[in-house]
Amino acid sequence: MAGSTQDIKYSFGLWTVGWNAGDPFGTPTRPELDPAESVRKLADLGAWGFTFHDNDVFPFGSGETERRAHIDAVKKAAADTGMVCEMVTTNTFTHPVFKDGAFTSNNREVRRYGLRKVLTNVELAAEMGASTFVMWGGREGTEYDNSKDLNAAHARYAEGIDTVAAYIKAKGYDLRIALEPKPNEPRGDIFLPTIGHAIALIDSLDNGDIVGLNPETGHEQMAGLNYTHGLALALHLGKLFHIDLNGQHGPRYDQDLVFGHGDLLSAFFTVDLLENGFPNGGPRYEGPRHFDYKPSRTEFLDGVWESAKANMETYSMLAAKAAAYRADAEVQAAFEHAGIFELGESTLAEGETPEAFLASQDTFDVTAAAERDYGLVKLHQLALKHLIG
Amino acid sequence: MAGSTQDIKYSFGLWTVGWNAGDPFGTPTRPELDPAESVRKLADLGAWGFTFHDNDVFPFGSGETERRAHIDAVKKAAADTGMVCEMVTTNTFTHPVFKDGAFTSNNREVRRYGLRKVLTNVELAAEMGASTFVMWGGREGTEYDNSKDLNAAHARYAEGIDTVAAYIKAKGYDLRIALEPKPNEPRGDIFLPTIGHAIALIDSLDNGDIVGLNPETGHEQMAGLNYTHGLALALHLGKLFHIDLNGQHGPRYDQDLVFGHGDLLSAFFTVDLLENGFPNGGPRYEGPRHFDYKPSRTEFLDGVWESAKANMETYSMLAAKAAAYRADAEVQAAFEHAGIFELGESTLAEGETPEAFLASQDTFDVTAAAERDYGLVKLHQLALKHLIG
Amino acid sequence: MAGSTQDIKYSFGLWTVGWNAGDPFGTPTRPELDPAESVRKLADLGAWGFTFHDNDVFPFGSGETERRAHIDAVKKAAADTGMVCEMVTTNTFTHPVFKDGAFTSNNREVRRYGLRKVLTNVELAAEMGASTFVMWGGREGTEYDNSKDLNAAHARYAEGIDTVAAYIKAKGYDLRIALEPKPNEPRGDIFLPTIGHAIALIDSLDNGDIVGLNPETGHEQMAGLNYTHGLALALHLGKLFHIDLNGQHGPRYDQDLVFGHGDLLSAFFTVDLLENGFPNGGPRYEGPRHFDYKPSRTEFLDGVWESAKANMETYSMLAAKAAAYRADAEVQAAFEHAGIFELGESTLAEGETPEAFLASQDTFDVTAAAERDYGLVKLHQLALKHLIG
Amino acid sequence: MAGSTQDIKYSFGLWTVGWNAGDPFGTPTRPELDPAESVRKLADLGAWGFTFHDNDVFPFGSGETERRAHIDAVKKAAADTGMVCEMVTTNTFTHPVFKDGAFTSNNREVRRYGLRKVLTNVELAAEMGASTFVMWGGREGTEYDNSKDLNAAHARYAEGIDTVAAYIKAKGYDLRIALEPKPNEPRGDIFLPTIGHAIALIDSLDNGDIVGLNPETGHEQMAGLNYTHGLALALHLGKLFHIDLNGQHGPRYDQDLVFGHGDLLSAFFTVDLLENGFPNGGPRYEGPRHFDYKPSRTEFLDGVWESAKANMETYSMLAAKAAAYRADAEVQAAFEHAGIFELGESTLAEGETPEAFLASQDTFDVTAAAERDYGLVKLHQLALKHLIG
Repeated sequence: MAGSTQDIKYSFGLWTVGWNAGDPFGTPTRPELDPAESVRKLADLGAWGFTFHDNDVFPFGSGETERRAHIDAVKKAAADTGMVCEMVTTNTFTHPVFKDGAFTSNNREVRRYGLRKVLTNVELAAEMGASTFVMWGGREGTEYDNSKDLNAAHARYAEGIDTVAAYIKAKGYDLRIALEPKPNEPRGDIFLPTIGHAIALIDSLDNGDIVGLNPETGHEQMAGLNYTHGLALALHLGKLFHIDLNGQHGPRYDQDLVFGHGDLLSAFFTVDLLENGFPNGGPRYEGPRHFDYKPSRTEFLDGVWESAKANMETYSMLAAKAAAYRADAEVQAAFEHAGIFELGESTLAEGETPEAFLASQDTFDVTAAAERDYGLVKLHQLALKHLIG
Repeated sequence: MAGSTQDIKYSFGLWTVGWNAGDPFGTPTRPELDPAESVRKLADLGAWGFTFHDNDVFPFGSGETERRAHIDAVKKAAADTGMVCEMVTTNTFTHPVFKDGAFTSNNREVRRYGLRKVLTNVELAAEMGASTFVMWGGREGTEYDNSKDLNAAHARYAEGIDTVAAYIKAKGYDLRIALEPKPNEPRGDIFLPTIGHAIALIDSLDNGDIVGLNPETGHEQMAGLNYTHGLALALHLGKLFHIDLNGQHGPRYDQDLVFGHGDLLSAFFTVDLLENGFPNGGPRYEGPRHFDYKPSRTEFLDGVWESAKANMETYSMLAAKAAAYRADAEVQAAFEHAGIFELGESTLAEGETPEAFLASQDTFDVTAAAERDYGLVKLHQLALKHLIG
Repeated sequence: MAGSTQDIKYSFGLWTVGWNAGDPFGTPTRPELDPAESVRKLADLGAWGFTFHDNDVFPFGSGETERRAHIDAVKKAAADTGMVCEMVTTNTFTHPVFKDGAFTSNNREVRRYGLRKVLTNVELAAEMGASTFVMWGGREGTEYDNSKDLNAAHARYAEGIDTVAAYIKAKGYDLRIALEPKPNEPRGDIFLPTIGHAIALIDSLDNGDIVGLNPETGHEQMAGLNYTHGLALALHLGKLFHIDLNGQHGPRYDQDLVFGHGDLLSAFFTVDLLENGFPNGGPRYEGPRHFDYKPSRTEFLDGVWESAKANMETYSMLAAKAAAYRADAEVQAAFEHAGIFELGESTLAEGETPEAFLASQDTFDVTAAAERDYGLVKLHQLALKHLIG
Repeated sequence: MAGSTQDIKYSFGLWTVGWNAGDPFGTPTRPELDPAESVRKLADLGAWGFTFHDNDVFPFGSGETERRAHIDAVKKAAADTGMVCEMVTTNTFTHPVFKDGAFTSNNREVRRYGLRKVLTNVELAAEMGASTFVMWGGREGTEYDNSKDLNAAHARYAEGIDTVAAYIKAKGYDLRIALEPKPNEPRGDIFLPTIGHAIALIDSLDNGDIVGLNPETGHEQMAGLNYTHGLALALHLGKLFHIDLNGQHGPRYDQDLVFGHGDLLSAFFTVDLLENGFPNGGPRYEGPRHFDYKPSRTEFLDGVWESAKANMETYSMLAAKAAAYRADAEVQAAFEHAGIFELGESTLAEGETPEAFLASQDTFDVTAAAERDYGLVKLHQLALKHLIG
């Protein structure tokens, strides 16, 4: 397995290292960073790619000249360093005009304005050569259940996404949309709060084939949900288009810690899934390992780059541990003992109909099955020993 | 609106009033109730219908004679009282044989045993004249992320559900399946943890057209999610087949309080949606108002029936309040002011293509839109005044 | 009970209506308000008093002339309107210098700077005639468990509070300190996360007699704790010096909703305790009804004042409901039935020693006691009917 | 540090391995274990001690002969193996008589019955040579805020604890009481929900000097609180008398996982504190490393003992990692850089009065302090590398 983690493609949002560390109770503790410089710096640290919101690179309301200058500076940094712009996304949440939502604002003119901003940004994504177009609807939601017609809101959300997907297809861009679920913050309750809700809505779209997910570790954990389980469902349904890795301590404000600095055991199993796939094979995640985190507000510039490195370092360490874990014969035997491989077999035999099955008799010893020792704690402890042993 | 809440069809699970109040730290505080007697008692209290798990009515492992006697007693009580058996569900979680799951057990023989139990119970549901067949996979999950192949687990879960749906179709029963999501407890992480996840999996089924949801108030709230938002998504996607109403205080153990005894404002908006629909019209919930709660362990038998009454009484009070709230001209004006009706209009005009839209120019005053006062707090306060004024 | 809610003394933090609605994902949606104007406006709306942080009134780093001008403007508004400045507090969290804490910063010079800012502000509090001096240590905490020596941090926190208390005593001011607990946000874990932790530390102080609490509804609920229970403990221990009323939806980001717009039933019982005391008498809260909330970011200026009114209106409605609830003979009978009054009796008889008690024999029917129906659900439903009936 | 983890004194509750794995939705999956046999088995696995509730050893309501036989069997096992009975506790939560509480039941006769059960069990604790007497008031709480007079409830709770402490003193036993906080489950809200609340009440007792805490990892984490922070406060205040180590995934039902199988990074810092103390010295925890966990319900008997071993193995691995972490010069340099040692210095100089301090001038560069890079993320990453590197 030597060298196995050398080729992992790490990418960072420019807004991550670029966060100036203002929070709801405090003003910024760091200066604004030049996005082009951040691209160069991330390249130096060993990253493979980068991503951005439109307004990470140029200010909201920029004229075309200003916009172009900012974009070109980033493109030059990318060209100089070989850094890949793998994803572009649109900021439809910072400006006050979006205070009640963009695609689901009660104000139709705002919806049209938001849609225009997103469609315009599709062009930029195509220009940058991005393969993924993330949509996080951070303002699509309510504080009060009667603030919106909740059916109409979902209809408008679907309309907006479908329109963007139709546009991508019409233009022939090699770009897929990835929705990013989040349960709350900055809205009291955000629409499409989890991986599941987002896929459910996607399935209702006309152009849902090019729409999938960009699940974020912390966002699922803010709802107390298991991120690795969520990734598995998205993979099972062919919808894991991109990922946002970070750290979080359960239901509370969005912490955006370094990956692994929240729930470490969960991070291990996330990496194990991403790097090694399911034990019985099946769909794999093929995209970059993308970090969406915030350098802690206590840090100044050294801490920004230390934290950026920490994400990659932690992931690489976990990847190495996960490789050894999977290669361990004792682990494989524990998989076998636990029935992990048996779960890969269909419940009904090939061609067995429900009626035939019901009419048949299985010989089955209920008591013996009830007393089976699956060895799940032991198997988990084996993983723990690989992780910290 | 006089009399408008008189005709609400309330139903109860027999396991609700029948809970003998054993909990993880305590032995039962109440005797077992005879299910047939509970049907009669609930009828006396004004309920319209009832529901049950197979083993609420007859013990696990009953022989056919014993099973039949128990079923017939309940059928007689239903016939005597006019109570409708509107839903039947299967217990695949109490017996130790299901300790690692039924449809997703690592043990294929257990999966087949669980599937057989469910298919057998479809026959009972049909016999009882139920229209809904709920499936709660309370043991389908893990405590440790490596306890299962998480892709295979979802595949087996889908296989199991699809098999049951195929069987119902093959038999021609007028029965729809309703999945019940829950994030955790009794398993560390349960598969299909939310409304969204369940719909997402349903969309992958061959027979998903007869599979929808039975969302429970408290289950969504255990993940910090907004139950009314969840109902709205399910309605929007045509998947709200049944409901389980109760009360909960956010992320903690499953409390199963009386409906309204948890988050009362949320309960008001749930009732408002169920009784009055969306402000712009759209899909409606047509099923019974079904309670899945537990009488508090501090109560003896009087408290059982007091709590059963409290569910119906609270719902009826909320329905009356919601009717007056919707009928209030000031509320309707506040809806108009907030743009509730405007959200019913599509964002693009009819026939407007994304390309044409992008090429066009909207005249739009960003500053004015940013400074719009939507009046959402005032609107919410109007609802509050209807509720407690 | 007519007119009983007319005399309730409502006060507001100037930072509440003054919040310009910037949040972690969005820039401000409202202009800065002039604090003196806010005092006048709140007076118009019927408030009795107001409160502020030093930097709500004058900017961080103001020279004395600027500072004085700002203070005098607020004092004049207070004098003109009769509004009482009942509490003053110090901002030790917004400026980057406090990014690692004020009283518990790892940097001793920062600690001294923070302490100086607080002591200086004691002088202002005395000048304003405030009776309470709140201390919220929003930056006293960590994101990582090894960021601080956790014993030293508590020692420094205690030292800082004790120093301020000693100073107040030395100056002879009629001012009591009220600590405000919060579990997290903006720090990952804040020291003194709950009502209990704060009282525990206070008990270790030399000057703890003039140090108590200012518990905030939402802060306790962010930890899933029961606010009314917390108030009761603080009252029982003589430490409820002040309150911050608002609304929250359980463990998530700090929402600062209008009081009653979060958990309404909990708000009802909070008001019932504040207005009517414990059923068996005992310590009462004598301070103002103080709101610490944020007008939703979707609102412009109309919404600011609508939301301010909504706090008072909701509290007054709940107070009227609570008065009627307590006056209801059926409720009092349910109290009696439940044993509410019996809990007021000591468990041991007067003079009964543990040894004598253990040597004695109680005749006690365990089974009868186990089968007692306390009627707690019915009693709760009586409250609900008073609230929404 | 070689061999440093060899001498760690591990102890287990007999109810842990003895749990027969019934849960709210399922019947037991394992047979009852003989407690004396569990003592022997735990000794074989390397444990040093054990603990129990009265009714772990003899059934509720046992006559004296039966009770004595059960106790003697356990004592013999202890004598045979050298296992130390270090703590005894009383079950005041399982039997229905305690459904509304023991010390805070609305029924005074129940309170007296509960108090008698506890006092009787003090005698057993003394007989067993235990040094700690844990009191977990699992039923002391409410589901509804009006179920109790909340002041009287705290008064009765305090009376009960104080009575037991007075009795211990009167009898001259070398026994300290340790209260175990928990926020909820099995009651909706439990009194003394956190470490802080419990210390606050203790401080009001006449005999509080022999009353401290037994904090459980998962119980604090169920409220989203930081367990290590909580231990630090308890140590700072001299109240960490005993500990219950286990694992939990944040706010949800009480999981009682193996120690380290929940939040692993938090477990590392817990062990670091317990084994290595605070960086600047100060109070140390001197008691046993006691596990209060549940073997997963999926496991049969092999899994019971595998999970018991996993607790000790994980703790020992973490202790070895923590020793190396503290011994690392780079870590110590990072401590120095971060100001960890500086936090050990008092904020005011010795003899410096608040007035003199305020009158003095510190030269302080606010900007420089604001731009300090504390290196907290790097320090945390150093810990992570020790843990998994």
